[in-house]
Amino acid sequence: MRPAYAAALLALAGFALSAGVLAAVKPETAIRYRQGVYHAILWNFAPMNAMVRGTQPWDQADFARRAQRLAFYSQQLLEGFPPGSDRGAETGAKPAIWQNPEDFKAKMQAFEDAAADLAKVAAGSDIEASKQAFAQTAEACKRCHEKYRAED
Amino acid sequence: MRPAYAAALLALAGFALSAGVLAAVKPETAIRYRQGVYHAILWNFAPMNAMVRGTQPWDQADFARRAQRLAFYSQQLLEGFPPGSDRGAETGAKPAIWQNPEDFKAKMQAFEDAAADLAKVAAGSDIEASKQAFAQTAEACKRCHEKYRAED
Repeated sequence: MRPAYAAALLALAGFALSAGVLAAVKPETAIRYRQGVYHAILWNFAPMNAMVRGTQPWDQADFARRAQRLAFYSQQLLEGFPPGSDRGAETGAKPAIWQNPEDFKAKMQAFEDAAADLAKVAAGSDIEASKQAFAQTAEACKRCHEKYRAED
Repeated sequence: MRPAYAAALLALAGFALSAGVLAAVKPETAIRYRQGVYHAILWNFAPMNAMVRGTQPWDQADFARRAQRLAFYSQQLLEGFPPGSDRGAETGAKPAIWQNPEDFKAKMQAFEDAAADLAKVAAGSDIEASKQAFAQTAEACKRCHEKYRAED
């Protein structure tokens, strides 16, 4: 890799290039990161939701594949909320997140657990159980959003 | 899950809610999705790059964890470039992508292969091999970017 290319690539993303990169992550970089993960979640959540609602034909293999992705993404979110990233770019994250870190972590963990269970259930062939696990996961989303995400 | 909540959540993300959701994905939704995945890649690529450059202490376990993430993310990108998503929101994706779909796919596959190899090597304890595999992955990024990503 050419260092100049790497520097340009990273500068583009707003990363600090000096020593201690992690400590120096800009709030806006964290905000873009977590919003990116949420977009990736929704990209997969939407067709799953359509299958559960019956507006798209049920496809267990596709449902299972997307459930596995949700399980992965659910584990990537928490690090996207470092202290100080309540501002720095447009964000729907409420300050309450950083005022209640333990509760926020617990709700994220509940989402991780629900998504992991969904992936496990979806790998089988029980459609109703898959739908139920999906509903549980969506509930976990909601329990966090209603407290920690600003209304649009 | 309350349908109204699901609808609001999906509407927020720009997903069409009618039947045939996949077919009806808006270009801007695909653009936001793929940009989100790229942000997630960079979030992990940056500290790996810092370790390789020596501006951050080497941590094989962290390097390996991030390499696994890159391998996952590399497999999520291609679907974020559906026909028609060359416009609809600000994007650095060049029209050449959709004019050379087979070449674009091949370059994406090369990235997937490099990232998979990186994850495999990083799971071991050979630092130099890890750095080399990282360089190969970064080269795969570059080979696609130089042809298909607009300069800023």
